[in-house]
Amino acid sequence: MAPVFYLFYMLCLNLSLLCVLFVVTWNLYWRGGFAWDGSLLHFNWHPVLMVSGLVILYGNAAVVYRIPFTWKQRKLVCKLVHAGMMFVALLLSVLGLSAVFDFHRGFNIPHLYSVHSWVGLSTVLLFSSQWILGLVGFLLPYSTPWIRSSLKPVHIWIGKVILVFGLVSCISGINEKLLLTLNGMIAVPYSTLPVEAVFVNFLGILIVAFGMSVFGILFVKKWQRPEDGPESTHLLLSEGTP
Amino acid sequence: MAPVFYLFYMLCLNLSLLCVLFVVTWNLYWRGGFAWDGSLLHFNWHPVLMVSGLVILYGNAAVVYRIPFTWKQRKLVCKLVHAGMMFVALLLSVLGLSAVFDFHRGFNIPHLYSVHSWVGLSTVLLFSSQWILGLVGFLLPYSTPWIRSSLKPVHIWIGKVILVFGLVSCISGINEKLLLTLNGMIAVPYSTLPVEAVFVNFLGILIVAFGMSVFGILFVKKWQRPEDGPESTHLLLSEGTP
Repeated sequence: MAPVFYLFYMLCLNLSLLCVLFVVTWNLYWRGGFAWDGSLLHFNWHPVLMVSGLVILYGNAAVVYRIPFTWKQRKLVCKLVHAGMMFVALLLSVLGLSAVFDFHRGFNIPHLYSVHSWVGLSTVLLFSSQWILGLVGFLLPYSTPWIRSSLKPVHIWIGKVILVFGLVSCISGINEKLLLTLNGMIAVPYSTLPVEAVFVNFLGILIVAFGMSVFGILFVKKWQRPEDGPESTHLLLSEGTP
Repeated sequence: MAPVFYLFYMLCLNLSLLCVLFVVTWNLYWRGGFAWDGSLLHFNWHPVLMVSGLVILYGNAAVVYRIPFTWKQRKLVCKLVHAGMMFVALLLSVLGLSAVFDFHRGFNIPHLYSVHSWVGLSTVLLFSSQWILGLVGFLLPYSTPWIRSSLKPVHIWIGKVILVFGLVSCISGINEKLLLTLNGMIAVPYSTLPVEAVFVNFLGILIVAFGMSVFGILFVKKWQRPEDGPESTHLLLSEGTP
């Protein structure tokens, strides 16, 4: 089974790299690069951080338990890697939100008016709640086996919901940015498909393809990490932790 | 288990009704109603048909096997209901695409330039392939049990992928329509959140909530239809079909 898994996983990793490369190139080459000073360049961190954090790092953190070579590690190590990657993903997402709020303030643009922003903010709020719930339910020593076994399916389901929300937010955001930016340039409106538009539309396709590769990996039952030992050994600071 | 299922299912049905009601009201009350004459009103069929067909009817067809009272029916009946509902969903989606292509032709707007249109067209193409594959693999008598058991997980996975793509397409499309329409009206741009914008943003939230209710129903293993009898009795025109 492992070779087929690694084929899927390599696809997932390659799509990850391509998505990050594309979103950085877009903002570096066509949108003038980056700054953190309330200027137009301040906005450019928003797509880069949301795509890299909320979708790419999030998706990679979601499949970390499925990588067969990690099965030799204790489950607590995997949990910590999963929680750590998710924490960085959440941090990047919050920074990405902060970039767009700062940019709006600098240009007196109202916050949170589009359906993209409503779904996007819901995604980050859901993600924050999920991370805290995950920490309390699966890592802190006060959690009981009953809590963990009841929470696990909910955690997995909400985890997938967040990825779907993340994909919806990214594609609607990319569409919004191209409409607002390119349609402001009379010479090359979005509908004439300048090179930037084709490049960024293709980034959109790469992002949904990445999402589907993650869902593909999560979908196959036999790629799940085999259960090893009693759950009590998999909590932080619990008696069973060596 | 059934009461919890029916609670979820009622939520799913209520969200279905609300989504259709909201998308029709939007286009009837704020966008001037419907026509099939290449005018601006011709476009209004696009959101109504895509939301109703590609998301709402599609999602309802996806969960039809999970409704406990259908388990008393032979599996072939369920398959035919599922395939029939999916066929109507596909028909509505193709009509919805036709509405936007006709509208573009009428106003000399280029086709397929936005990332919304790229993801949307991919969704309908994937849906068409899935329907044909489903017909050949699960209903026509030439299909073998080996083909059906191999195809089933792929069919289920692609089915979920299409729903995710459908959600991405609808939300990015709604965002695009509001940006293009409201920002063309100097008095009430999208960023001032006129009543129409709040109403339609809320439609967006209802659509993603509907998608999540469908994924919730599909996620719970114990809500799956129990297997009944050999697969050979579940094909059209096969010897086992009474």
